[in-house]
Amino acid sequence: MNLKDIGEFGFIKRITPDSLNDTRNVVRAIGDDAAVFTIGNDECIVLTTDLLVERVHFIKESMTGYQLGYKSLAVNLSDIAAMGAVPQHAFVSIGIPKDTSIEYLDEIYRGMKELAKQYHVNILGGDTTSSKVDLIINVAVTGVGKKNTLLYRNTAKDGDIIFCTGFLGDSKAGLDFILKSEQPVKDYEKRLVEAHLLPRPHIKEGLYLANSGAVHSCIDVSDGLSSDLMHIAEESNVGFLLNEEAIPLSKDLVQYCNEHGYSAIDYALAGGEDYVLVCTVDPAQAQKLEKDFTKSFQRPIYRIGTITKEKKYLMKKDDNTLIDIKPKGWDHFA
Amino acid sequence: MNLKDIGEFGFIKRITPDSLNDTRNVVRAIGDDAAVFTIGNDECIVLTTDLLVERVHFIKESMTGYQLGYKSLAVNLSDIAAMGAVPQHAFVSIGIPKDTSIEYLDEIYRGMKELAKQYHVNILGGDTTSSKVDLIINVAVTGVGKKNTLLYRNTAKDGDIIFCTGFLGDSKAGLDFILKSEQPVKDYEKRLVEAHLLPRPHIKEGLYLANSGAVHSCIDVSDGLSSDLMHIAEESNVGFLLNEEAIPLSKDLVQYCNEHGYSAIDYALAGGEDYVLVCTVDPAQAQKLEKDFTKSFQRPIYRIGTITKEKKYLMKKDDNTLIDIKPKGWDHFA
Repeated sequence: MNLKDIGEFGFIKRITPDSLNDTRNVVRAIGDDAAVFTIGNDECIVLTTDLLVERVHFIKESMTGYQLGYKSLAVNLSDIAAMGAVPQHAFVSIGIPKDTSIEYLDEIYRGMKELAKQYHVNILGGDTTSSKVDLIINVAVTGVGKKNTLLYRNTAKDGDIIFCTGFLGDSKAGLDFILKSEQPVKDYEKRLVEAHLLPRPHIKEGLYLANSGAVHSCIDVSDGLSSDLMHIAEESNVGFLLNEEAIPLSKDLVQYCNEHGYSAIDYALAGGEDYVLVCTVDPAQAQKLEKDFTKSFQRPIYRIGTITKEKKYLMKKDDNTLIDIKPKGWDHFA
Repeated sequence: MNLKDIGEFGFIKRITPDSLNDTRNVVRAIGDDAAVFTIGNDECIVLTTDLLVERVHFIKESMTGYQLGYKSLAVNLSDIAAMGAVPQHAFVSIGIPKDTSIEYLDEIYRGMKELAKQYHVNILGGDTTSSKVDLIINVAVTGVGKKNTLLYRNTAKDGDIIFCTGFLGDSKAGLDFILKSEQPVKDYEKRLVEAHLLPRPHIKEGLYLANSGAVHSCIDVSDGLSSDLMHIAEESNVGFLLNEEAIPLSKDLVQYCNEHGYSAIDYALAGGEDYVLVCTVDPAQAQKLEKDFTKSFQRPIYRIGTITKEKKYLMKKDDNTLIDIKPKGWDHFA
């Protein structure tokens, strides 16, 4: 079935079911000029939006509709996680080339709705339109959090310990397969591709960090560890010193890089789209946070460096030499 | 200057100035994973989002950057107006082909910022990315309003009087010039093109209608009067009877249609993108609303028909015959 058989409003009717997962503060959902929801008095609304464009962010042929829908929402939920907020409502704008099949679109919304359900997030509104050649998905997500516990980028302090909540670089390794149009064969290769296509937003980790009272600043790794840490450093007017041997690399990534002669640490620094959280923590509270986090999540949080007063971006290599870190992450216009 | 000369973060720095017009409830603006703002306890957040794609919604060559930026925001503000809410914050996602000049982008943001300023709206965040061929702009806007005064589509009642807040059809006439790549020459032609390119969102009118207590339902005319009234009728489970001679046509539209042998009433019914408001009003309060509105705005609100129990979509012609109204507005996938 093709889109022109059901029309714009037929399409909206088709995507409406299973869009709401928590109706407590919903006043009006899909079907009016705008969606309406309320919040309690002492809380803040957090809003993030991400635009995904075919041939820039994804290759339709190398990604199922389900994966595309899942990831479009996941990257936004990751931003909400990085603020230490609770995600609530998603708003999906979609620009659709006329030859797109309804079945593919259904899969996009199925991926989005399955992830939304996991985190009790509603799909509350959006916009549907046509597009000449490229499929376009813009998702905006709102969340709530208390003003004094939300986590920002510009509040890192000299002496803070830098932590991250998961492995870095896997997503870039997975992307290699997609860019080369190669099918992953071995199990570890499949896991790397999945790390790229179906990243898990660290919502629970973000809330945990926000409520710990120990975290000074936080960001999600979307552009690459080096770039994202530079965002924190630049906006906080500080520098950082990373410790190469402490940067967490998955066995999968190490095996992949060994087999192909790549540097796993380069993948971790410049990778991007890992969607783990990087945060800076009060040094007096770092040890307790480490212990408590590990107990809560049954896996470690990784201590990867320190915030410095001097505005340099450095990494201590395994041989104890210091090297300058250059921004190697993704710049859309470079 | 071209985009690759300044990079993604250079571009964000460039668009940040003059983005805030009312900082009272802003906690965090452009520059973090998400924007943060608060609202008072008794109010609702309203959120709308619209996606504009080159070659679908606009032809770059027939529109200045200023007009494109202005209109991208205006169509969203119009949705907020149709809810009877106060617009507060805008979030702009932009997908930019690599050959786009910085100067053109600056003009887009100038148009957006000038309109934002008029209504004390902040540009609070967004996303910037590249696009392969088409320029893409998604704007999301939040507003606030009280739960019991906001205006919806599905609350029209049998017997309601249908009003609209301005002329219909001008925008479609203006679009004719653009689609034919014809320059408007006469003053009235220029005004028609401007009605299409720089529509005024009826924010004050929407607030007035919401606060009147007389209005049962409201929508903005984006798809065309017939289509938009059908949205109200369908979702309210009622019908409508329009009165042809009462539908407000500008002198400019009448002159244009006379000169070209078109039907002005067809332009008004099927036009779309007029961005005036259509509302349905308690018949006992219609006369007072008419009088008060005219006094407040120094121009009339137009009484164009009645909501009917019978679920038919009809129009009384000038010769008193009744005709069926078919949805003639814009369906993106038709």
